[in-house]
Amino acid sequence: MDARPIVAITMGDPAGVGPEICAASLAESSVRSAARCVLYGDERVLMNAAYLVGAADVLANAKNSGDLRIVNLSNADPKAYRPGEVSPLCGRAAWEYVEAATRATLSGEAKVLVTAPINKESVRAAGIPHIGHTEMLGALSGVADPLTMFETLGLRVFFLTRHVSLKAACDLVSKERLLDYIERCSIALAGLGVKGELAVAGLNPHCGEHGLFGDEEGREIEPAIAEARARGIAVSGPVGADSVFHQAKIGRYAAVLSLYHDQGHIACKTLDFERTVSLTLGLPFLRTSVDHGTAFDIAWQGKASAVGMVEAILAAARYT
Amino acid sequence: MDARPIVAITMGDPAGVGPEICAASLAESSVRSAARCVLYGDERVLMNAAYLVGAADVLANAKNSGDLRIVNLSNADPKAYRPGEVSPLCGRAAWEYVEAATRATLSGEAKVLVTAPINKESVRAAGIPHIGHTEMLGALSGVADPLTMFETLGLRVFFLTRHVSLKAACDLVSKERLLDYIERCSIALAGLGVKGELAVAGLNPHCGEHGLFGDEEGREIEPAIAEARARGIAVSGPVGADSVFHQAKIGRYAAVLSLYHDQGHIACKTLDFERTVSLTLGLPFLRTSVDHGTAFDIAWQGKASAVGMVEAILAAARYT
Repeated sequence: MDARPIVAITMGDPAGVGPEICAASLAESSVRSAARCVLYGDERVLMNAAYLVGAADVLANAKNSGDLRIVNLSNADPKAYRPGEVSPLCGRAAWEYVEAATRATLSGEAKVLVTAPINKESVRAAGIPHIGHTEMLGALSGVADPLTMFETLGLRVFFLTRHVSLKAACDLVSKERLLDYIERCSIALAGLGVKGELAVAGLNPHCGEHGLFGDEEGREIEPAIAEARARGIAVSGPVGADSVFHQAKIGRYAAVLSLYHDQGHIACKTLDFERTVSLTLGLPFLRTSVDHGTAFDIAWQGKASAVGMVEAILAAARYT
Repeated sequence: MDARPIVAITMGDPAGVGPEICAASLAESSVRSAARCVLYGDERVLMNAAYLVGAADVLANAKNSGDLRIVNLSNADPKAYRPGEVSPLCGRAAWEYVEAATRATLSGEAKVLVTAPINKESVRAAGIPHIGHTEMLGALSGVADPLTMFETLGLRVFFLTRHVSLKAACDLVSKERLLDYIERCSIALAGLGVKGELAVAGLNPHCGEHGLFGDEEGREIEPAIAEARARGIAVSGPVGADSVFHQAKIGRYAAVLSLYHDQGHIACKTLDFERTVSLTLGLPFLRTSVDHGTAFDIAWQGKASAVGMVEAILAAARYT
């Protein structure tokens, strides 16, 4: 019996780096021994990318031996795709890959979903009503507010807020919001089979040093943690942001709830820029992805690193 | 001729981890081949610490051969020092080491200063009118506002603000303040002999995505950088905080001006918690130090890692 999970992988926007990082990843032996991969995309585009990165023979063999399956969604002529350019054709194709792969994962054909980057402008140009992956997956699964977790070299990070200004993020550090996130993070960690304590990062330097600079710790964060603990959740903090990520990295905490976008992003991406995997939790299935975009400036030049995509597939296989 | 610079090293608060990390560092061959070390402290305390960390023989030999010099400032009976406790005696002793070492460095007897941790509460209990190292060094050298730089594995980071709340830090991101810091950082880098460009980090996620979330980039940061460049300073940005530290780490930038305490701290201390060295610039001499405190909870137990102190001495020697 084959113990490897079936992993649905989307090829991403054909004009971006998606096809080449998919081709390179699928050729990696570490990936193939961890997962049975099903690629949702366009075989012609994928094979062109495979030639570019020197993976054509390996992929052709894998396909012939049945080790790699390609779900071919070729509704446009690839000759019309222009590398590195925003286009409604590519936006629509990228959406179709996500839609098909998500439906397959929802139906149980695949166990877990991995996505390559799509381009928001191309998706918008195609008239797709969902601007990004999270919105697409939420709409297709009927989940209102999926949860994002980053993982880099074993460091796991959640985000209380993401795409709001830093000042607005400060204002969103409320007891209610924290409690909600602490509960959701805790459930998500249990769902991944991760044991241990969640740490909440501090907002101010040294957690404000007892109110000396900033009072959010005493006013909002400590009460939220106290109440969550009273509800039986394994959470502690606030822990100074300059040490909490290090402590999680060395295993003291299972994960960190960061309070604003850059707090968690700086930790993960300074630690290892290429190895940061983004996990979407709270859906009926797990989805992982690279944390970068279509990188149109270097697309189809054979320059893009596939390290992040490899890590995303390995993380998907590891957690299922 | 001995090419090694003379490095003045303070022993730090006798009740803290200073003596043991000094003893362990001074026994390191990498330190001794990089610097001629002069320790300002109390020889009896240092040797007790050296026994604790298994460095007594090496230090005794180094002292006998003239390779290690100890300036003995023994104004109190070390038996009165209690490990891990706040005390005016220790606060006064720590200040005396700093004062003597600073005067020696100012007079040219030493080329550069390295400090071990002191305890603010003990210093205050001793009635010393300068609360921390920066204030002490500023007062002794007549410099109003020295500049702090962190360095971790080649990543150099300055701070626009430090011990203020995150909200207050947002309000301090002004064109005037930025321009002042960009100029001072640029002068400081030149003084260290570091070539290359300074990068200013963004404040908001993705630098606010053209005002979509946060307008400080367009309103304050970009104008400050433009004016600094017009004055001939090699500076660029704002660069998204989730990539600027990585880019500096791989050599794209000489240093990063971070905009708030945790922005720079998270980057350095997640990258390598123990190897972060703090440099004080803008004084008549360079001073380096570990970035941690007296750690009273583990002092005199032989547990403290000397890695940071070794790095601080090596950085001092490298930059002189």
